[in-house]
Amino acid sequence: MALKVYLSGEIHTDWREQIIDGAQALEVSFSAPVTDHDASDDCGVAILGSEENKYWHDHKGAMVNAIRTRKGISDADVVVVRFGDKYKQWNAAFDAGYAAALGKSVVVLSPPEHQHALKEVHAAALAVAEEPRQVVEILRYVLTGTLPG
Amino acid sequence: MALKVYLSGEIHTDWREQIIDGAQALEVSFSAPVTDHDASDDCGVAILGSEENKYWHDHKGAMVNAIRTRKGISDADVVVVRFGDKYKQWNAAFDAGYAAALGKSVVVLSPPEHQHALKEVHAAALAVAEEPRQVVEILRYVLTGTLPG
Amino acid sequence: MALKVYLSGEIHTDWREQIIDGAQALEVSFSAPVTDHDASDDCGVAILGSEENKYWHDHKGAMVNAIRTRKGISDADVVVVRFGDKYKQWNAAFDAGYAAALGKSVVVLSPPEHQHALKEVHAAALAVAEEPRQVVEILRYVLTGTLPG
Amino acid sequence: MALKVYLSGEIHTDWREQIIDGAQALEVSFSAPVTDHDASDDCGVAILGSEENKYWHDHKGAMVNAIRTRKGISDADVVVVRFGDKYKQWNAAFDAGYAAALGKSVVVLSPPEHQHALKEVHAAALAVAEEPRQVVEILRYVLTGTLPG
Amino acid sequence: MALKVYLSGEIHTDWREQIIDGAQALEVSFSAPVTDHDASDDCGVAILGSEENKYWHDHKGAMVNAIRTRKGISDADVVVVRFGDKYKQWNAAFDAGYAAALGKSVVVLSPPEHQHALKEVHAAALAVAEEPRQVVEILRYVLTGTLPG
Amino acid sequence: MALKVYLSGEIHTDWREQIIDGAQALEVSFSAPVTDHDASDDCGVAILGSEENKYWHDHKGAMVNAIRTRKGISDADVVVVRFGDKYKQWNAAFDAGYAAALGKSVVVLSPPEHQHALKEVHAAALAVAEEPRQVVEILRYVLTGTLPG
Amino acid sequence: MALKVYLSGEIHTDWREQIIDGAQALEVSFSAPVTDHDASDDCGVAILGSEENKYWHDHKGAMVNAIRTRKGISDADVVVVRFGDKYKQWNAAFDAGYAAALGKSVVVLSPPEHQHALKEVHAAALAVAEEPRQVVEILRYVLTGTLPG
Amino acid sequence: MALKVYLSGEIHTDWREQIIDGAQALEVSFSAPVTDHDASDDCGVAILGSEENKYWHDHKGAMVNAIRTRKGISDADVVVVRFGDKYKQWNAAFDAGYAAALGKSVVVLSPPEHQHALKEVHAAALAVAEEPRQVVEILRYVLTGTLPG
Repeated sequence: MALKVYLSGEIHTDWREQIIDGAQALEVSFSAPVTDHDASDDCGVAILGSEENKYWHDHKGAMVNAIRTRKGISDADVVVVRFGDKYKQWNAAFDAGYAAALGKSVVVLSPPEHQHALKEVHAAALAVAEEPRQVVEILRYVLTGTLPG
Repeated sequence: MALKVYLSGEIHTDWREQIIDGAQALEVSFSAPVTDHDASDDCGVAILGSEENKYWHDHKGAMVNAIRTRKGISDADVVVVRFGDKYKQWNAAFDAGYAAALGKSVVVLSPPEHQHALKEVHAAALAVAEEPRQVVEILRYVLTGTLPG
Repeated sequence: MALKVYLSGEIHTDWREQIIDGAQALEVSFSAPVTDHDASDDCGVAILGSEENKYWHDHKGAMVNAIRTRKGISDADVVVVRFGDKYKQWNAAFDAGYAAALGKSVVVLSPPEHQHALKEVHAAALAVAEEPRQVVEILRYVLTGTLPG
Repeated sequence: MALKVYLSGEIHTDWREQIIDGAQALEVSFSAPVTDHDASDDCGVAILGSEENKYWHDHKGAMVNAIRTRKGISDADVVVVRFGDKYKQWNAAFDAGYAAALGKSVVVLSPPEHQHALKEVHAAALAVAEEPRQVVEILRYVLTGTLPG
Repeated sequence: MALKVYLSGEIHTDWREQIIDGAQALEVSFSAPVTDHDASDDCGVAILGSEENKYWHDHKGAMVNAIRTRKGISDADVVVVRFGDKYKQWNAAFDAGYAAALGKSVVVLSPPEHQHALKEVHAAALAVAEEPRQVVEILRYVLTGTLPG
Repeated sequence: MALKVYLSGEIHTDWREQIIDGAQALEVSFSAPVTDHDASDDCGVAILGSEENKYWHDHKGAMVNAIRTRKGISDADVVVVRFGDKYKQWNAAFDAGYAAALGKSVVVLSPPEHQHALKEVHAAALAVAEEPRQVVEILRYVLTGTLPG
Repeated sequence: MALKVYLSGEIHTDWREQIIDGAQALEVSFSAPVTDHDASDDCGVAILGSEENKYWHDHKGAMVNAIRTRKGISDADVVVVRFGDKYKQWNAAFDAGYAAALGKSVVVLSPPEHQHALKEVHAAALAVAEEPRQVVEILRYVLTGTLPG
Repeated sequence: MALKVYLSGEIHTDWREQIIDGAQALEVSFSAPVTDHDASDDCGVAILGSEENKYWHDHKGAMVNAIRTRKGISDADVVVVRFGDKYKQWNAAFDAGYAAALGKSVVVLSPPEHQHALKEVHAAALAVAEEPRQVVEILRYVLTGTLPG
C-alpha cells in the first residue's frame, strides 16, 4: 500500500516540511498548493494579463490555483488540512469540505484554541492532530501498523 | 422550473428571513441549518448523553447537525453561503467546499472587506453578492428571466 | 424538509413501532425490511420453487429480500441500524456498511455491552443511541430544531 | 490482467498468509487491515492522546483504522471477507456491505455453520468458500483460466 | 414504499399484461418499450426521413427507441427481462446488462430450456422466474411482505 | 412515463413555441434558458453591480445564466439543441457536450447546411431533426408509441 | 495514448488471436474472458464444490467468471463484442449493455446477417465491423491517426 | 505531481506544437484528436466501408474519432480548448461542455474578437488565454509554482 497525501492550508510555518521529512521512509507521495504567497496571489494576472479591479485580480489567481488544488485533492487518499494561528483560512475549510464531499480521508491539524470553531470540520475528519509529528505517526501506522514509542 | 435552495452560514442576523420573504412569489423551497445557537451547540449531549470533555460535547453535536446539513446541501440546486462580520465561520467555508465538490451552484453572500480572504471560495461560486436582496434578484431572474428595476 | 428513514436490523422487539409512533408528528416516511421472520426466510422458495439444499433455499430468499433492502437504503436519507441482544446480526452490520458507502447518514441503535465490538460500525455513524426514544429525538431535532425537555 | 485483493475480517488465524503464499506465482497485490490486535485497538490514543472514556478510546482508534480500510477496499478489485469461529465480527460484515455498495467483487470465506446467519452477506458475494485454498484457486482461475487438479 | 418497474424483452405474448393486471392492487408504476413491432422498427424513418440502406433504417429507429428505453431503465427500481421462445432477443440481454451495470434489481423471466444459455444473465439477477405470476408474487412480497397461498 | 425536456440553443425564432404547442397533449415538462437576449446579456451586472471591462460584464452574466442552464440540463431526460442560421452558437454546442457527458438523450435540431460542421455533435445525438415538428413527433412516439400520419 | 481493450463474446473461432496479432505494434493491452469452454462452465463446482442441480452448477460458474468479466470491462477503454454464427450469445449482448451503461466505447464485430437482430446493440456502438482486421484498423487509427492502405 | 493535458479544437495552426515544445521540461503528457484533416473526415468509411450518403459518411467518421476524443478527455486533468479564426468549431465547444460536465479543469485559448460569443464557454473555464505561451506558463506554474519573467 502506498498513500497519496495532499497537504492543504496554512503556508507560513514549516509544518509541511516536518511531515515530509518525518515520512521519508514511508511510501507516501505528497502534493500541496503553491506555497509562495506572492506567486499564489499574482499568478492570474502575471500570466493572463493585469486587472485594474482587485476582485478580478484575485479571481484570476484563485482560478489558476484551483487547477492545482483540484488535481491534488482529487488524486489524494488522505487530505491533511492545517489551521494556524492567524488569518481567516477559509480556503483551508473550503478544501476540507471539498475533500469530505469526495469521500477522502480528512486529517485536521489544528491548535486546541480553535477546537470549538472547527467542530463541523472536525466532525468530517478521521483524525484531529495538534502536531505535525502526529500526522507522520498516523501515516506510519496506516502504512505499516507500527505505533510510536 | 422550481429551485431548492440551502441557506448556509452566519446565524446572527436576519439575512435568511430577508431572502425567504423576498422570494415568496417564487417557486423556491428553502432549507437551512438549525439557527438556534444553543440548541445547535448542545443537541448531541441533550439527546445522546452528556460528555465531560468539551471536544466530544462539540463533536456529538456537530455530527447530529451534519444529518441536517448533508441532507440540505445534497438536495439543493443552489447553495447560498453567507459570511458575516464576526467569528471564524469555518463551517460556512466548509459547506461551500462541500457544495462545490457536489457540483451545486454556489452563491456567496459576503461583505466587501472579506473579498481577498474569500477569493478561493468566490472562485467556486457562480455569483458573489453583498446584499440578501441581490440573492432574491438572482433567484427571480433564474426562475422567471425578470431583472430588477 | 422531509426525511426518508430506513430501519434496518433486529426484528424481534418493537423498536420500529416505538420510533414510528414517536415520529408521528414529523415529516418522516419510514421503510424497513420484511419483519415476518418466516416469510423472510422462505420467500425465495415459496415464490420461485423449492430447493433441496438449504444453502440455495436461503440464497433465493436473501436475493428476493435484497430487492426491498436495496430500494429502502438507496432511497433513504437516514439509515437507522439496530443491534439487539441476540443472534449474529451480520445483516445489520452489512446494511450499515452498505449505507455508509453510499454516503447515507447512519444512526446506530445498540446496547452499551456491544460498544467495543461495534466500534468500526460506530465510527461510520453520525449518532449512536441506546434507546428508540433517542432516535425519535434526533429526527425531531433534525427536522424542527427542537430539543427534548 | 492483475488483481488487487483486500483481505478483510478475522485476524486470529493465518488465513491471510495461506492465501498470500498460495498466490505467490500470480499477479495479485494484497492489502489488509492492521492485524496486530493491540495496536489496532490503541492506535487512536497512542497517537492522538489518551481518552478516559472507553467509547472515545475505541472511536479514535476505529477512525484511524478507517483510513487504511477505506483505502484498501476502494482500491481493490476483489474483497475477500473472512468470518471465523469467534467474536461478533461485525466489522467483517460492515466491510462486506461497504464493498458491495462500491460494486467490488466480494468473496466470502466462512465455515458451514455460519451459513444461515450469513445468507444476506452471501447473497452479495460472487463466491462463498470454506477454505483459504479455494480463494487461491479462484484467484488463479480468474487470472489464468486454470482449474485445480 | 412504491416500486418503479421496467418490463424489458419479448413483445409477442401478453406477459406484460399479466403482470400489470396481477399487480393492480400494488403501488407499482410500470414502463416498457414500445411493443408495436412495426412502429418500433420504422419510427426512425417515419419521423426523421427514409433511408435507402436497411442498416441506417434500423439504426435511426433503434436510436429513437433508445430515448424511451434509457429513460425507463434509468428510472426503474426493478428491471424485469423476459426471454421468450423465439428470435435472438439480444436487445433483452443488452437491457439486462445495462440495468445490471446501473445497479438495478434485475428479475429474469425465462423458460427452463434457456437456463444454460442465460447463465451469465441469471448470475446478475436477484430472481429468476418462469411465469409472469411469479413476478407479481415477487412484487407483492417486496412491497407488502405477503407470500402467495 | 413523463419526460423532462430542456430546449437549448438558438433564441431568435419561435422553435420553442412550436415544440411546446405541438406537445400540449403529452406528458412533457419543458425548461429552457432565459430567451430575452438583453436580459440574458446584462443579468450579471444588473444584479451584482456594473463592470467597466466588457469581459467581466459578460462573465458575470454567463455565470448567473449557468445556474439556470445547469439546473435545466441536469434535471432533463432529453436535451434538444437547436442550431440556427446565424451567429457562432458555441453555447449550443457547449450544452450538447455537457448533456452528452451526463448521459442525457440528446436531440439535435439543425438545418442541412450545417451537417458537416456538426458531425461530432450529431454523433452524440440519438436523433437529428430539421424541423420542430419532428421533435414533437419524437416526443409523442417516445411517450405513446404513436407515429405520425 | 495507450488503450485497454476487452474482447467479449464468441469463443469458438480465432478472432481474438487475429486482433491481438494485428495490434502487436500498437500500445494496446488486451483482456478477455476465459475462453476454455469446459473450464468456464465448470469453474464454480471445480473450486467451490459440486452441485446436483444443473442450475446452481451453472450459477456458481457464472458468478466466478463474473469476477474476471467485471474487472476486464471496468478497466477497459474499448469493449469489442463479437457475435458469431452460432448459439444464443446472450452473454455477449449482456456485456455490450453493461459496457454501454458504464460509458465505454463499444465496438461490435458481427456478420451482416445479424444486422437487424442486433440493431439495439449496434445503436450503442461507436463502430460496427465485420472482420477482425477492421477492429485492428480502428485501434491503429485511434492510436496513431493512420488509415489502412 | 504530473499532469495529463488534452489539446482540443482548431487543427490548422501549430498551437499544439508550441505548447508541447514549451512544456518539454515539465511533467506533462499530452493527448489530442487526430489532426490530419482528411484522415479524420474519412476514417469511418476507409475502415468500415463506404457510404453513399454524405451524412452517414461523416457520421461513421465522427463515431470512430469519438473513441479517441472520449479517451483523451476522460483521462485528462486539464482540457485546453482552442478556438481559431475560421470555421464553426462546434466540436471544440462540444468538447468544452463535455469536459466541464466531467469536472475537468478547462483552459480556453481564444482570440479577443470571440470574447462575447464564447462567454458561456469562458464561464466554465479556469483560465482564458490568448496565446499558446500563456498555456505553457499556466502548466509551469501549476506544476512548479514558478511565474514567468
